[in-house]
Amino acid sequence: MTTQPRIMHMGAFVLGAGHHIAGWRLPGAQAGAENFELLKHIAQTAERGKFDLFFLADALNTSPTMHPSMVVRLEPLTLLSALAMCTKNIGLAATASTTYSHPYNLARMISSLDHLSNGRAAWNIVAGAFPAAAANFGLKEHPEHSERYRIAGEFVEVMKGLWDSWEDGAVPMNAATGQFVDASKMHTLDHHGAHFDVKGPLNISRSPQGYPVLIQAGASEIGRDLAASTAEIVFAVLQDLQTAQDFATDMRGRVKKFGRDVGHMKIMPGVCPIVGESEADARAKLARLGEMSDAATALRVLSERLGHDLDQFDLDAPLPPLPPSGMMQGHAVTLTKLAAEKNLTLRELRDFTSAAMGHRLLLGTPEQIADGLEEWFAAGAADGYNLMPPYFPGAFDDFVDHVVPVLQKRGLMRTEYVGTTLRDHLGLPRPAHPAATAAAAAVAH
Amino acid sequence: MTTQPRIMHMGAFVLGAGHHIAGWRLPGAQAGAENFELLKHIAQTAERGKFDLFFLADALNTSPTMHPSMVVRLEPLTLLSALAMCTKNIGLAATASTTYSHPYNLARMISSLDHLSNGRAAWNIVAGAFPAAAANFGLKEHPEHSERYRIAGEFVEVMKGLWDSWEDGAVPMNAATGQFVDASKMHTLDHHGAHFDVKGPLNISRSPQGYPVLIQAGASEIGRDLAASTAEIVFAVLQDLQTAQDFATDMRGRVKKFGRDVGHMKIMPGVCPIVGESEADARAKLARLGEMSDAATALRVLSERLGHDLDQFDLDAPLPPLPPSGMMQGHAVTLTKLAAEKNLTLRELRDFTSAAMGHRLLLGTPEQIADGLEEWFAAGAADGYNLMPPYFPGAFDDFVDHVVPVLQKRGLMRTEYVGTTLRDHLGLPRPAHPAATAAAAAVAH
Repeated sequence: MTTQPRIMHMGAFVLGAGHHIAGWRLPGAQAGAENFELLKHIAQTAERGKFDLFFLADALNTSPTMHPSMVVRLEPLTLLSALAMCTKNIGLAATASTTYSHPYNLARMISSLDHLSNGRAAWNIVAGAFPAAAANFGLKEHPEHSERYRIAGEFVEVMKGLWDSWEDGAVPMNAATGQFVDASKMHTLDHHGAHFDVKGPLNISRSPQGYPVLIQAGASEIGRDLAASTAEIVFAVLQDLQTAQDFATDMRGRVKKFGRDVGHMKIMPGVCPIVGESEADARAKLARLGEMSDAATALRVLSERLGHDLDQFDLDAPLPPLPPSGMMQGHAVTLTKLAAEKNLTLRELRDFTSAAMGHRLLLGTPEQIADGLEEWFAAGAADGYNLMPPYFPGAFDDFVDHVVPVLQKRGLMRTEYVGTTLRDHLGLPRPAHPAATAAAAAVAH
Repeated sequence: MTTQPRIMHMGAFVLGAGHHIAGWRLPGAQAGAENFELLKHIAQTAERGKFDLFFLADALNTSPTMHPSMVVRLEPLTLLSALAMCTKNIGLAATASTTYSHPYNLARMISSLDHLSNGRAAWNIVAGAFPAAAANFGLKEHPEHSERYRIAGEFVEVMKGLWDSWEDGAVPMNAATGQFVDASKMHTLDHHGAHFDVKGPLNISRSPQGYPVLIQAGASEIGRDLAASTAEIVFAVLQDLQTAQDFATDMRGRVKKFGRDVGHMKIMPGVCPIVGESEADARAKLARLGEMSDAATALRVLSERLGHDLDQFDLDAPLPPLPPSGMMQGHAVTLTKLAAEKNLTLRELRDFTSAAMGHRLLLGTPEQIADGLEEWFAAGAADGYNLMPPYFPGAFDDFVDHVVPVLQKRGLMRTEYVGTTLRDHLGLPRPAHPAATAAAAAVAH
């Protein structure tokens, strides 16, 4: 068996109006997360660039002052099912909440997406960062942070159990004998836990990938443990190489602690690329985006990331000390550290955050951007990236047309898809059904 | 303004393995509700036949002894989103439960389907007939019949309110001014009812149809009132013309009572067509299906419809008196009446029900089937039908290839689509946003 060369795994992290809050305003940019033709173009462009996955963010509330990409939008699972028909190879990752979904309904839908796409579904497990969602689901209060993660942990176990309701080959549909299903290959979950009681079985067969690929972005202690115990892709907000290396070392240690194979967890930090013909050209694009930004929206985006309303503070003073956030802890820690290290005023931090939502910004020529991506990858701080283009379609087209070929020439990205499922792209095994594992163990004894 | 001739509205009611419990076993038939290529063929065939809609049944539980079409299956909203990409005109109706869904999540998904399909979505509102679903959703007990309908009524009001979160034109996305949304056109629902507390607004724009087309199949007193107050398509199980006429008269009276336009409710009973080259040929097909039926599954299907386990009864005696069902009241009443009138044994009633799930069976030549459809339509007992082919693809292909042309020649079915949305096909108005209605009223005064 020859060892495959290690390649970068790439996700197109899609906020329909772009990640920069003013991205949609640029000439040639298109606006809106409800613009299906644009979303189809992005998915097909990502596939042309041999990306691993198309990754949809989500939230369960809205307000006119939210980031323009999040105010109104198509729902991820319906949208990705439609995109499955317009693409052949690329993975399709849906963000869905463990706080505000029924596991039976969600397990069905994600399994259905995996069937419809012939094995390209992924689930980004989120515990729900936005407290405003609670009121849309009849809850007086958004559960507190650690409680949300305990719910999430149990929710994931229920999902896996439901996905194992039927062994592979449980539906022979034998017209000659009249046997439609093989009841001996059906398993009733009968889950009774602290947060969920779910009997099962699920009313859909085991899907092409067994389980869809699991994605998590927890950054807190409990969040990192959930990611390390379950996630196959870890999405992270990381600004500097040293922090990224520390994060990777910590996460790989946790993965081992949970008895998992370190190679089965791919760390893919967010990166916002601004590609220019020269570094000056790229900087000019960023400056232009900054000029077009709405100050109130920019401050709201930063407020969400820090978990505190910042309206009351002086924009031209340093970021004041704030108690720990109960919302997006990864963002809060990263941005607070950055502000302290670079001695940024609140205004400067706001403008930085409005560019890439707090994620790493890489700007310059295609070679410069490729260098920045290669650096972390070579150092083992990243197994790939979630690309967060500042606007669509131009900024992403530029990346695929100009940066991807550089990465391919360096042998860092694939030039053709090898397998057909998202697990194939990522080099992840298809989870065997527990009954098959048990049978194999019995034979071995 | 010229009056359009009245035409039949047609739905393809899709159970993937066919409506006859043994349909999937016939030579040439295809099996399974997870067979996307078959489902795509059915949708495209329905569109070729100028049908109004493709209608997906659903349930939230499973067992190996259920009807083969219902054991395992793709989830309706993801499946229909995929089918939206493979079709241009046909309406796409999803069954979804008001007992086991979150209105915020469901409102988003159905609206998203309406966006993705450019205005072809419909929602079949079901209160959930299968008590086994409760255990999949952490409920100790399935709510009783009238409680389920009270929940359903409030759920529908919440859905409409969420769909009106944004007025038409609320998202100008004006790049020049930087105005992405017009906050003055946003409405926060703030619903607080007996069963739901939902703040809103929904995070998706008002969809092409305003509201998706609403379908209901309630047959009990409270079910008929829910249908009459909300439904634009009424799906019904009806066996004889007199009962169908009585039902139509009753429903139209209720619609008036609720202050609605009688023309805005289309009554579409279920019909199972078996097309033959001669009547004898059609009868031979039915007999062959009967021979292939599994007796246990057939009795289970009848048990579900009558709401009582029938294992204990003598198959060769008449149907014993049973207390009223808390499950599918329309089916229970219709089948009990039929058994009494025709003096059927339990075995005969079982075999009848296994053919068309208790719906009206029409068999014979294309002309004979067209006659049966025209009779009820001309008498005002039906505005159209939900076709329930006994197997796929053959039985439905036969209907579209041979019966549809007869109906078109008689001027009873369209030969081309006129509008683009499902509301256009059905002759239903697009609901104005309440704010627009209020503004128009203010101008009039």
